[in-house]
Formats: sequence, structure tokens, C-alpha cells
Amino acid sequence: MEKIINNISEYLKKIKDKKPLVHHITNWVTIYDCANITRSIGALPVMAHAEEEVEQMVSISDALVLNIGTLTTDLVRSMLLAGHAANKKGIPIILDVVGAGATKFRTMKAKEILKNVKISVLKGNSSEIATIAGVESETKGVESISVKGDLIEIAKKLADAEEVTVVITGKEDIISNGKDTYVCKNGHDMLGKFVGTGCMATSLIGVFLSVEKDYALASAVALSCFGIAGELAAENSKGPGSYKNNFFDAIFNLDSELVSKLNKIYKIS
Amino acid sequence: MEKIINNISEYLKKIKDKKPLVHHITNWVTIYDCANITRSIGALPVMAHAEEEVEQMVSISDALVLNIGTLTTDLVRSMLLAGHAANKKGIPIILDVVGAGATKFRTMKAKEILKNVKISVLKGNSSEIATIAGVESETKGVESISVKGDLIEIAKKLADAEEVTVVITGKEDIISNGKDTYVCKNGHDMLGKFVGTGCMATSLIGVFLSVEKDYALASAVALSCFGIAGELAAENSKGPGSYKNNFFDAIFNLDSELVSKLNKIYKIS
Amino acid sequence: MEKIINNISEYLKKIKDKKPLVHHITNWVTIYDCANITRSIGALPVMAHAEEEVEQMVSISDALVLNIGTLTTDLVRSMLLAGHAANKKGIPIILDVVGAGATKFRTMKAKEILKNVKISVLKGNSSEIATIAGVESETKGVESISVKGDLIEIAKKLADAEEVTVVITGKEDIISNGKDTYVCKNGHDMLGKFVGTGCMATSLIGVFLSVEKDYALASAVALSCFGIAGELAAENSKGPGSYKNNFFDAIFNLDSELVSKLNKIYKIS
Repeated sequence: MEKIINNISEYLKKIKDKKPLVHHITNWVTIYDCANITRSIGALPVMAHAEEEVEQMVSISDALVLNIGTLTTDLVRSMLLAGHAANKKGIPIILDVVGAGATKFRTMKAKEILKNVKISVLKGNSSEIATIAGVESETKGVESISVKGDLIEIAKKLADAEEVTVVITGKEDIISNGKDTYVCKNGHDMLGKFVGTGCMATSLIGVFLSVEKDYALASAVALSCFGIAGELAAENSKGPGSYKNNFFDAIFNLDSELVSKLNKIYKIS
Repeated sequence: MEKIINNISEYLKKIKDKKPLVHHITNWVTIYDCANITRSIGALPVMAHAEEEVEQMVSISDALVLNIGTLTTDLVRSMLLAGHAANKKGIPIILDVVGAGATKFRTMKAKEILKNVKISVLKGNSSEIATIAGVESETKGVESISVKGDLIEIAKKLADAEEVTVVITGKEDIISNGKDTYVCKNGHDMLGKFVGTGCMATSLIGVFLSVEKDYALASAVALSCFGIAGELAAENSKGPGSYKNNFFDAIFNLDSELVSKLNKIYKIS
Repeated sequence: MEKIINNISEYLKKIKDKKPLVHHITNWVTIYDCANITRSIGALPVMAHAEEEVEQMVSISDALVLNIGTLTTDLVRSMLLAGHAANKKGIPIILDVVGAGATKFRTMKAKEILKNVKISVLKGNSSEIATIAGVESETKGVESISVKGDLIEIAKKLADAEEVTVVITGKEDIISNGKDTYVCKNGHDMLGKFVGTGCMATSLIGVFLSVEKDYALASAVALSCFGIAGELAAENSKGPGSYKNNFFDAIFNLDSELVSKLNKIYKIS
């Protein structure tokens, strides 16, 4: 198991120099935090969902983030329009299948997007990804309860079948494009104690997709940066209120030296 | 006037053990804070409003929170669908009639939900509840200005007439199911200095409804915990920014000893 | 160039005494922060967008804030209804043309509102305002990249042509009603490092419009207060998380003495 420490610092600089525009069609719960983490790492967020403008907006963007956290039929229609426009211009897309498995509607719409749009990164927690992979699992709202099967195998197989990079978040994050598989062990318990970390991690991956074409590597690095900020935030935190502020401060202040030293990305195949 | 100090601590433990799923159909202003207070106390929030999924989502939930803060006709339709599904399965429902009295539309829709769905707890500030009760009052946007009449009597009568637990929030919170009536005197001035406290209190009651079937008692205890966290948050606060963070830290760290010592719930009938 | 220091402190007192109701039809990203800054300065926010109620809601309000950050056709319809109702009652309106120039849809809808509703203050960053003025410019999402031409001249001409007060935000804010022109030099770099400052500044101007009928002066004073809070917030900030909290604390604690001392409003014509 080889630790990857190469060029994380380079990505941070690239993002700050390029200021990539990251178009989001996302949910109404964490929309602010998704925009704010994008800004905090040095990129530019734009949130736009009207079907009249999503194609034009994505066409001037460097990455597209789709998140079905509070999906409606209208919103998914805009996601499909934006997704097609992104595909035409080769703009990378991350799809977060929030709550897949919790309702038939979410599962169906997640699959509809995946079928009709060429997705770069498909992300979810273990039960959400298991649902998409057709593996038995239990989802409680938007939380994963249990999955039958080995997560690394599920990620690899789904990546192969859908020709997509699969990201399964959890205590350890798993990233696979079918060929290359990474495990990221950065993170902190407190990241599970407030709302929005899953969505923010998705947005951060969206940012990194715009500066690294190896989407599995980009996702692993993004999740490592996310987890490292989570580790740093724990100092001087008294609960989720102070922790969340410290987390945004830490994302903003991430520097190459710290990240090179603290990252726990392992390439396992 | 008897002070209730019994089993508040027990509820906190029950919530952390059971991790109840609390389905919200709420407003776009405070949706994040509603989800986050639910998570901070140890429960699991899920926010879902598409009419295609609300019935299924609520049917796997332990409580339903309806909040008309930024209502539309579509959103109220989803509330009615979710409400009916919750009623079929005996899942408790809290309805927060935000802004009732400010516009005819809000008053009408609040009454429509109350008439068509069996609500467990009907909550609002004094002028909102007075509006529903048909008592003269003045509402300024979503703030209560004045009410003609005794609030405790209004709460009792409305509770009897609608067979519902009525919660009137204010400097002192009033809770009545017609038979049992409580006053909760916990709280802090700073809770009125930032946006979202009313909505968050509603979500917290939603959580407690899932662990206590005496809905008046559950509401009183939830509001006491809310107010105690507000009292604790005032230390080291310099304004609404730092106060709000301290408040989330306090909710997260509420422990049985503090709560037993600090609660100011009085049973007045 | 004359420095304006007169009656800023008086406005702060007026706001706290009158508690103006500020009706917003705004975007889903920063809706909470817009409401919260309105509350923090001492006014009352109300967010309502259903077409069935916006006319009645605005008619009991003291100012109307329109912000097209996440516009849809439906939302713009509600803005037009509210705008007409506000015009009938002489209620001041600020329109923030977020993202104008980024997509045809935004530009078209911004112009449609401006044509059909009598706007008091038209606000945007340099490229957004340039777009409305028909001046060549480049917008990246909701960020201004470049504008060909002198911003003060653009503001003056557009103010004359549209009979509106024009506000162009940036490192230095420009405010002109065609006759009187102000530059406000308060502010801090960190205000550009997190999401929502533009929208919050708009809401704050909305508040000040309700206590000062000279809309150019009201806008200049609001932006100065905003910038001063930004300057004060920088102390003890470690990044955008802690800075934003300090900013809300500072807005809440703004006092007449500090504001009179620190304001950097210059009348340039």
C-alpha cells in the first residue's frame, strides 16, 4: 500500500491561480456551504438552476456539481440540460446521489441522470452507492445504515460497469475508476456531527476536477484536503458551532507543507 | 405552580440512542439551521419536499416538521401529502404557522393544513396562534406585535377546539393540550437577535415528539433544552455571530445534570 | 472631495427605533444571511415569494429587496407583482442584478424588471452594471472580470437614463443618482473571501432606504456601515469562518461614535 504525497500542494496553487468557475445545481439545505467551500479554497462558485440558463452557465464553467439532496422533477430536468451541455464541451461533472435508496424517486432520478449524462465522478455514502450498484443496503433518510458486501469491490465493479470514477465516503473514503483505487484516511469524527459535510466534500471534488484530468486522483486529493482541514479544525473546538468555523478557516489556510505532511491517501491497486 | 424536573436527562439519552429520523418540509431561509439543530441534539434530519417522494420519506421517519415560512401552493400540497401519510402511520407532526396573520394566503393555508391533517403540535408566536384562534392581533411580517386576550386562555381553548397541543413561543413559552398546561421560562434575549430561532425550536420539538408520546410534555422539555442552551451560549458572546456558534455548541453538549439543574418548566394546570 | 460624516449615527438609531420591515424576494444561496444582517442591524426581515401573497406582504413593508441570484421565471413574476404593489404605495425598492451578463436569461430578466418596475436603487458589481448600461464587459459566473470604461461615468449616465440611484460595488463603492455622486472607501479584503457579502450589502441598503428618502445618501451610508463592520471584523479573525462571525457581531454592535469616526464616504459631485 503506497502513500501518495506527490503534488497536492501544486493543486492548491493551481486552484488559486486559475480561479475555476464551478457551476452547482444542488439542494436548498447546504447550498450556501457548497458555495462557500468553493470560494474558501480559492475557486468561484455559481449556483444557477433555471432551465432557461443552465446550459449557457455551465458552458462558461470549469466543472459542474449535481447534488440531488432536495431534488424535484424540475430540478432534475435542469440537471439533465446542464449535464448534456457540459458533456458537449468536455466539462467534468460530479453527481452526488444524496438519499438514493431512501425513496424510489431518488433512486430512479439518480439512475436517470447517470444513464443520460456522462458523469465523471459518482459519489455517495456506502448505502447510496450500493443502491446504484444494485447491492442490498439500508438508508435512513440521507444516512447509510448498512451494506451487504465489500465496499472496495462494489466501487471497482460499479466504476467498470458505468465507466465512471466512484467515490464512497465514510470513515475511510474509497475512490476507484476501476483500474486505480485509493483509500483516504484523513478526517475527524466531528465532521459527522453537523450537517453539510458530504455536500461540501462533493463541491470540493468539483473544484479539483477542474485542475486534474485524472478524476480518481483529483477526488482522492480533494477528500484528503477536506479531511485534513477537518483534523486541523478540531483544535480549540467546543462543539459543532465552533468546529464548523474552524473548518472554514482551515480550508482557507491549507498550505502545501501541511498537506504534504498530513495527507493519508493510499493507492491500493 | 409545580416545577417539572423529572426526566429531561432521560430524553437526551433516548434521542442519542434512537437517532430518530425527522422529516422536514420547511422554508428556504432557515432550512440549514433546522437540519443542523436536529443533528446537533443527536437525531437525523431529512429535508425532502418533492410530491413524488414525501409520502415514502415520511413513512420511514419518526416525526414530521411542517413549517410555512416560505410557503407556496406546491409546497403546501406536499405538506398535505406527507401529513396524510404520517397520520396513517401514527407519526407525530408539528406545524409551525410562520407568518399566519401577515397575509391572507398564510392564514388560509395554515388553516387548510390544520383542517385536513391531524396535527400533534400547533406552534407559533402569540399573534400567529391568535390568528388561528380567531383572536384579534397584529403581525408584522413574521413578528408578533400585539394580541388582545390572555395567551394561556387562548392556548387552552384552541387546544380543546382543535384537539391539538398548542405552543405559543415568546419571552415565556406556553404549552397546553387543553388539560395540562406548562410555562417554560428558560431562554435569553440574544435568541431574539438573530434569525431562525423560532424555526429551530420547532425542529427541536419535532425531535422530542419522537421519544415522548405526551406531546405537551415533550414540547415543554424541548423548549426548556432550547432555552437552556440559549442561556449557556451567552457566556463569551460578543454579538449574534459568536452567540449562534456558542448556541450550537451548547445544544450539542447539553447534559442531563445541567438540564436537570437549569430547567424552568412550570406546570400551571 | 468632501467627506460626509453627518448623521450616520442618527440612522442607526432610527432603524433600531422604527424596526422597519424589509420584504425580500431573493436567492436560495444567501437568503439566510440577507435575513440575518437585516435583523442584526435592528430591522425585521420577511422573506416571501409566493405570487399569492407578495403584493399583500410588500404593502405592509417599509422596503423591498429584489435579488436575482437564483432567479427562475416564476420568481421574477413574483418580483414584478411585488414591485408594482410597492410602487403603488411608494415603498422603496432595491434591485441587485446578480450575474447580469453571465447569461442572456439574467440580463433579459434584469432589464425586464427595471423596465416594468420603478426601481429606487439599481445595484451590481462593475460588469453587472456595465451589462445593464450596454457597456462592454466580462462576467465570470457572478464575478466581475473587466469593464471597458470609467465606472463613475457609467454610474452617472445610467442613473440619468433610468432615473434611478446606481450602486457599483467593488474595492471602492460608487453611488450616483446622476446629480450627487459618492465614493465609499470602507471595507476589507476578507469581505471578498466568503460568499454572500454582495447580497448582504444589498439587504443593508434596503434597510437604510426605509429611513432616508435621499436614496443615494442612504446607499452610501449603508455601504459605509457595511465596510466599517468589515474592517472591525478583521481583528482576531483567522479565516472566513471566524471573520464572518466577527462581521455579524460588528454589524450588531455598530455605534454612532465608531461610525462617525471611521466612515470614508466622499461626495465627488
